[in-house]
Amino acid sequence: MSRGSSAGFDRHITIFSPEGRVYQVEYAFKAINSTNLTAVAVKGVDTAVIAIQKRVPDSLIVADTVTSVYQISQTVGCCAIGMIPDAKFQVKRAQGEAASWKYKNGYDMPCELLAKKMADLNQYYTQNAEMRSLGCALLFISYDDEKGPEVYRVDPAGYYRGMKGVSVGVKQVPATSFLEKKIKKKSDLNSTETVELAIEALQNSLGIDVRSKDLEVVVVSKENTKFTKLTNDQVEHHLNQIANRD
Amino acid sequence: MSRGSSAGFDRHITIFSPEGRVYQVEYAFKAINSTNLTAVAVKGVDTAVIAIQKRVPDSLIVADTVTSVYQISQTVGCCAIGMIPDAKFQVKRAQGEAASWKYKNGYDMPCELLAKKMADLNQYYTQNAEMRSLGCALLFISYDDEKGPEVYRVDPAGYYRGMKGVSVGVKQVPATSFLEKKIKKKSDLNSTETVELAIEALQNSLGIDVRSKDLEVVVVSKENTKFTKLTNDQVEHHLNQIANRD
Amino acid sequence: MSRGSSAGFDRHITIFSPEGRVYQVEYAFKAINSTNLTAVAVKGVDTAVIAIQKRVPDSLIVADTVTSVYQISQTVGCCAIGMIPDAKFQVKRAQGEAASWKYKNGYDMPCELLAKKMADLNQYYTQNAEMRSLGCALLFISYDDEKGPEVYRVDPAGYYRGMKGVSVGVKQVPATSFLEKKIKKKSDLNSTETVELAIEALQNSLGIDVRSKDLEVVVVSKENTKFTKLTNDQVEHHLNQIANRD
Amino acid sequence: MSRGSSAGFDRHITIFSPEGRVYQVEYAFKAINSTNLTAVAVKGVDTAVIAIQKRVPDSLIVADTVTSVYQISQTVGCCAIGMIPDAKFQVKRAQGEAASWKYKNGYDMPCELLAKKMADLNQYYTQNAEMRSLGCALLFISYDDEKGPEVYRVDPAGYYRGMKGVSVGVKQVPATSFLEKKIKKKSDLNSTETVELAIEALQNSLGIDVRSKDLEVVVVSKENTKFTKLTNDQVEHHLNQIANRD
Amino acid sequence: MSRGSSAGFDRHITIFSPEGRVYQVEYAFKAINSTNLTAVAVKGVDTAVIAIQKRVPDSLIVADTVTSVYQISQTVGCCAIGMIPDAKFQVKRAQGEAASWKYKNGYDMPCELLAKKMADLNQYYTQNAEMRSLGCALLFISYDDEKGPEVYRVDPAGYYRGMKGVSVGVKQVPATSFLEKKIKKKSDLNSTETVELAIEALQNSLGIDVRSKDLEVVVVSKENTKFTKLTNDQVEHHLNQIANRD
Amino acid sequence: MSRGSSAGFDRHITIFSPEGRVYQVEYAFKAINSTNLTAVAVKGVDTAVIAIQKRVPDSLIVADTVTSVYQISQTVGCCAIGMIPDAKFQVKRAQGEAASWKYKNGYDMPCELLAKKMADLNQYYTQNAEMRSLGCALLFISYDDEKGPEVYRVDPAGYYRGMKGVSVGVKQVPATSFLEKKIKKKSDLNSTETVELAIEALQNSLGIDVRSKDLEVVVVSKENTKFTKLTNDQVEHHLNQIANRD
Amino acid sequence: MSRGSSAGFDRHITIFSPEGRVYQVEYAFKAINSTNLTAVAVKGVDTAVIAIQKRVPDSLIVADTVTSVYQISQTVGCCAIGMIPDAKFQVKRAQGEAASWKYKNGYDMPCELLAKKMADLNQYYTQNAEMRSLGCALLFISYDDEKGPEVYRVDPAGYYRGMKGVSVGVKQVPATSFLEKKIKKKSDLNSTETVELAIEALQNSLGIDVRSKDLEVVVVSKENTKFTKLTNDQVEHHLNQIANRD
Repeated sequence: MSRGSSAGFDRHITIFSPEGRVYQVEYAFKAINSTNLTAVAVKGVDTAVIAIQKRVPDSLIVADTVTSVYQISQTVGCCAIGMIPDAKFQVKRAQGEAASWKYKNGYDMPCELLAKKMADLNQYYTQNAEMRSLGCALLFISYDDEKGPEVYRVDPAGYYRGMKGVSVGVKQVPATSFLEKKIKKKSDLNSTETVELAIEALQNSLGIDVRSKDLEVVVVSKENTKFTKLTNDQVEHHLNQIANRD
Repeated sequence: MSRGSSAGFDRHITIFSPEGRVYQVEYAFKAINSTNLTAVAVKGVDTAVIAIQKRVPDSLIVADTVTSVYQISQTVGCCAIGMIPDAKFQVKRAQGEAASWKYKNGYDMPCELLAKKMADLNQYYTQNAEMRSLGCALLFISYDDEKGPEVYRVDPAGYYRGMKGVSVGVKQVPATSFLEKKIKKKSDLNSTETVELAIEALQNSLGIDVRSKDLEVVVVSKENTKFTKLTNDQVEHHLNQIANRD
Repeated sequence: MSRGSSAGFDRHITIFSPEGRVYQVEYAFKAINSTNLTAVAVKGVDTAVIAIQKRVPDSLIVADTVTSVYQISQTVGCCAIGMIPDAKFQVKRAQGEAASWKYKNGYDMPCELLAKKMADLNQYYTQNAEMRSLGCALLFISYDDEKGPEVYRVDPAGYYRGMKGVSVGVKQVPATSFLEKKIKKKSDLNSTETVELAIEALQNSLGIDVRSKDLEVVVVSKENTKFTKLTNDQVEHHLNQIANRD
Repeated sequence: MSRGSSAGFDRHITIFSPEGRVYQVEYAFKAINSTNLTAVAVKGVDTAVIAIQKRVPDSLIVADTVTSVYQISQTVGCCAIGMIPDAKFQVKRAQGEAASWKYKNGYDMPCELLAKKMADLNQYYTQNAEMRSLGCALLFISYDDEKGPEVYRVDPAGYYRGMKGVSVGVKQVPATSFLEKKIKKKSDLNSTETVELAIEALQNSLGIDVRSKDLEVVVVSKENTKFTKLTNDQVEHHLNQIANRD
Repeated sequence: MSRGSSAGFDRHITIFSPEGRVYQVEYAFKAINSTNLTAVAVKGVDTAVIAIQKRVPDSLIVADTVTSVYQISQTVGCCAIGMIPDAKFQVKRAQGEAASWKYKNGYDMPCELLAKKMADLNQYYTQNAEMRSLGCALLFISYDDEKGPEVYRVDPAGYYRGMKGVSVGVKQVPATSFLEKKIKKKSDLNSTETVELAIEALQNSLGIDVRSKDLEVVVVSKENTKFTKLTNDQVEHHLNQIANRD
Repeated sequence: MSRGSSAGFDRHITIFSPEGRVYQVEYAFKAINSTNLTAVAVKGVDTAVIAIQKRVPDSLIVADTVTSVYQISQTVGCCAIGMIPDAKFQVKRAQGEAASWKYKNGYDMPCELLAKKMADLNQYYTQNAEMRSLGCALLFISYDDEKGPEVYRVDPAGYYRGMKGVSVGVKQVPATSFLEKKIKKKSDLNSTETVELAIEALQNSLGIDVRSKDLEVVVVSKENTKFTKLTNDQVEHHLNQIANRD
Repeated sequence: MSRGSSAGFDRHITIFSPEGRVYQVEYAFKAINSTNLTAVAVKGVDTAVIAIQKRVPDSLIVADTVTSVYQISQTVGCCAIGMIPDAKFQVKRAQGEAASWKYKNGYDMPCELLAKKMADLNQYYTQNAEMRSLGCALLFISYDDEKGPEVYRVDPAGYYRGMKGVSVGVKQVPATSFLEKKIKKKSDLNSTETVELAIEALQNSLGIDVRSKDLEVVVVSKENTKFTKLTNDQVEHHLNQIANRD
């Protein structure tokens, strides 16, 4: 983006430029890439899965404390990608919204409503002058008794969508192309295909062979509607399957 | 608009330029076109209809979750076009206003009053310094027992009008011309004519043949005062009728 | 107004320039002409009348929903001219003030007090930094049991006056000259003369022959103290009378 | 005042310039002359009088609704000169203060205390950043049982003084000189002399012969402590007396 | 003070310049001289006195309403010098503080505590961004049963001191030198000497012979602890004594 | 960082630059080094330790009052490094959070939750315009009955991590390299090895021989879960052991 | 400090410069020297003492009302140096904190806690945008039953330390060097030595012979834990002892 065209319209949180753009929101999208990670989510027939790079930036960090995936409620899982403190703030907020819904209504908050709520909060930050937008994107997965598996994407502008497959982060362009090609060919993926497509799309977009310890893979499915993280062995198994297939 | 003439008067939300213009509001209008969609609404003798492009920007998006039309109450439907998060904010607000009216008065909020209320809220954003205007336009349709079908348009400046036909979005100029010509010739449109004029105006302004899956068509009529979305087959049928007529 | 002379004093709502001017208020006056309309009001012996151009900017607008004249209470009518959303905001406020007075005092709010109240609100906007002035002017007419017919003008600066005749809008200069000449010659106008002077002044200032559908004419009189809008036929009749007289 | 010397210190309401001046307050004084009127008040032995130009800027204005003199309470009259909406705001405030005093204390608010109260409010506007100063000056007259006739002047800076004679407005310099000369010669003026000195000073400062309809003359006196406006005939009589004397 | 050295640090109320100065407070001191007056206060063995120029800027002002000295409580008198509206604001505040103390404690507020309280308020204005400092200085005198006569000086920066003699205003430099020389020679002044030293210092600093009507002289003493203003005859007597002595 | 690239985006607390950076937060990191200290924390099998330089900047300071390590609760210790007043503010806050948790839940606040809470507070300062970020980093150590020893790092951006070893401050780069090399070789450190690795890493990064009085070493372990500071003699002993080993 | 390097980062109270500095706080330190005074405090075995210059800037000031030392509670004394109104504000606050503690806890607030509290308040001013930092430093002395004599220093940045000896003010550099040299030689000072070291350090840093009336010396000791001011004769005695020793 050329500096000349923004001409000061980008230094106030809530004003329009003459072209009708709100620059501060656009800059917030840049912050999503600040951790240099990529995530992929895929929705199959009975399964929804998120695969995300796990990079422990420093060998001294206790690897267990580094994660981008969070349980929001019994039935909803989330991956938050971007500025880490902003991501954690969003996750905490989502957990609070979900808990409050459960308490009021006696059943878990449907994934779509949660995605909508988080998007509404993001929209508010783009309109009001008091606080900046949050520099992170969210992916939600859930298995709904009626609708089956669900994948939602929420961005800093307050936009959310249900997705068949989605990628966010630095390599989202190649990962998305990969997903589009594959899902076009075959969209009724069984559980294994769903998991392996997510992993493969991520691996493909990165252009390197990933090892099981460089990945976090989380799954919800008809058999197990609880948000479950695959073990390293399980991930390894899928990686081998993919390698053998090629 | 030349940059020179605004000279800084466009960077504060609530001030007049020497020509008596409020630039920030004018810029908000530009944001209506940000999603690159066009909508058309037409009022017939017994029917009001909205036809709007449906473009799923990404083949991975679950098409069902992409819509620009919303039910506001049992009798009022709405199409919101522009920045999507702003549009959803407005729709939620309209739903809240309508529900609150129903609760207080025991009958559904008349469409004109709802349009007026939303316009008043928009006017407030143009006068007060705290929050920016919302970058979206609204079309409301309803069937009123006394007044028959109604179409209202509400814009970011807080202006609203009852319309015989109306278009908003990137192609609103050609679509409006088309509507004007057609309605001038014949304004007492029956149900089918109303629906097909809306579709035709949209198709004509886009300069391409649209397919049923690229359209959302919603209808209220004397026979069925509830806001109803046509099925793909119904839309297909109308598209064929139009094609055959030409 | 040369830009040089304002030198930044025009970008803050509530400050004086070295010459003691409050520029933002002056700019608000420019906004009155933004809809490019002109209104004329005349006070006769027993009658007060407002004639205002009606221009439906778009043939698709439902003409009935376009109006610049509003009933404020049983005895007071109003014409609001300028930025339409601001105008509607002012009208709603005036209706609220009048209703509140009626409720508290048991009789309709006298027209002068209403004009004064609206002027006071406008003054407040010129002094306080929080909100901009409203870009519209108001004309009020009423028939008072004691004082007879009344015409009041309220402007964005918070200035109001009782008038024998008055014009606001783009053509207010020629319309005012016309009124001054005519009223100087004869000021004890009967009902018909009052109506026709208003119409004639408007027609004359526009320099074109107006048709009944391009006009809104509202009347209060001794016989009928209720704010009444003339029908197209009645307006047509007056237009013919004027044409024949010339 | 040269622009150079203010150098930006005049664009903030409540800051001092390096010379210890508060520019915004000085600019407010300029606004007093914006209506281009002059007023004169004189205190005699038993009488206090205000004479002020009445100029109906537009022959269409109902002359009765144009006035610069207001009754504040049963015993205090006021002339407000400057930006008219600001003047009316001040008058309303003064009326409110006087009514509140009467209610609390059971007797009319003494004129000096009222002048002091209004001056205190003006001082506040010069110190606080929220609201601009008001662009008008006030003259109060009253007949006090103990002190006799009183004349007070209040200005936008929050300064007030009891006066033997005073002029405010565009011609205040010549009018003040005239008053000083006359009152130096003879200060124990009887009722007629008081009235005629006020009129003469005003006439003299304007350099033209004024007619009774161009003047408002209000009087309080020992005989009639109520604020009374002279009729046109009474003013005419005084004008003739003055003319004959010369 | 050179403009260059302040470089914008003087346009914000509560910030330090790189040299640790708060410019706005320094500018407030300039405003003390805006009325072009000088005051002198002297403390003797049993007497405290303030002598201050009285200048009626306009021969039309009722001389009785012009004063710079105010009774704060039964035992404390005050002279306020600087911007008159600010001075009156401070005096009113001091009267309120003193009255509140009396009500709570049952005895008059000691002069030192009152001076401290007013200084604290001034300090607050220098630290907080909301309101500008007040452009006036205060002198307090009182006769304390235990401490004898007292003289306090309070300035816009929030600094206060007990003084043997003090001068504020345009001629404070020569007046202070005069006081220093005289008090060095003889500091145990009796009542008459105290009064005459104050008058003489004022006269000397002005470099002109003052007349009794150009002076206000207020006294508190062991014999009469009430704040008392000398009559013109008493002042005249002292002036003659001084003249004869020379 | 080149000045040119920030271009004003660094002078507002809560806005994004076009690259999606929040400059003020980045500058806060610089302030961590303002006291020119370095700290090292290491986690062993049964022990967690912090070693930090102790520099008494002035020989007149009572050495006992200089410390960078604080007890937060019975089980959590903290080292705060950066701007000292900010550090103390953070420590006080952490103590308050821990005490409040203990009171509500009846057991000590787990170290991870405390670190998360402090990180959340830091995140808030980066998003809200009212207060600047705090210029200090925090290290927490604790012995958890279930998880064993723990080391957490919290930074001004609101980022926190569990660590095997960590260094913050001016020499954090060489200290971190040293830790990485050593821990890679052997990570199952016993108590003595843990303490001595922390001391050695610190000594090594500083490039000088430190004496026991230049160090603060605090320990929590399985045997003694209370935060304990080593005596000078104990530190001396470890220093000798290290020296002998080399 | 070169202007270039601050580049506007010094005009906002609560922002960091790119180097992680908060300029406004640094400028506040400059204000400490604005009264051109120096203070020295020394801690002996049983005694803590503050010696500070007393300069009556004007011979007319009542010398008794000029002091830089204040009693905060029965056991804590304070010396405040810098902008006098800010200093008095801080002292009043400290007295309030100490009184409140006594009321709540039934015993005097320990000196260290009071110093910490005042430092915390200063830290807050450096972080929050509403109020500037206070331009003064504080020294506290106290005799604690358990810890013996104590000396604390609190600065505008919110930093506080216990000290063996300390100097603040314009001559703090030479005074501190003097103290360091002397205390290095002998730190177990008896009462007399403590007092005389403080006086000597002050005298030495000023480079002139001070007289007893130019000094304020306050002491707390094991024998007399109350904050006591030495009489002029006592100070004179010590000055003679020092002179004789040299």
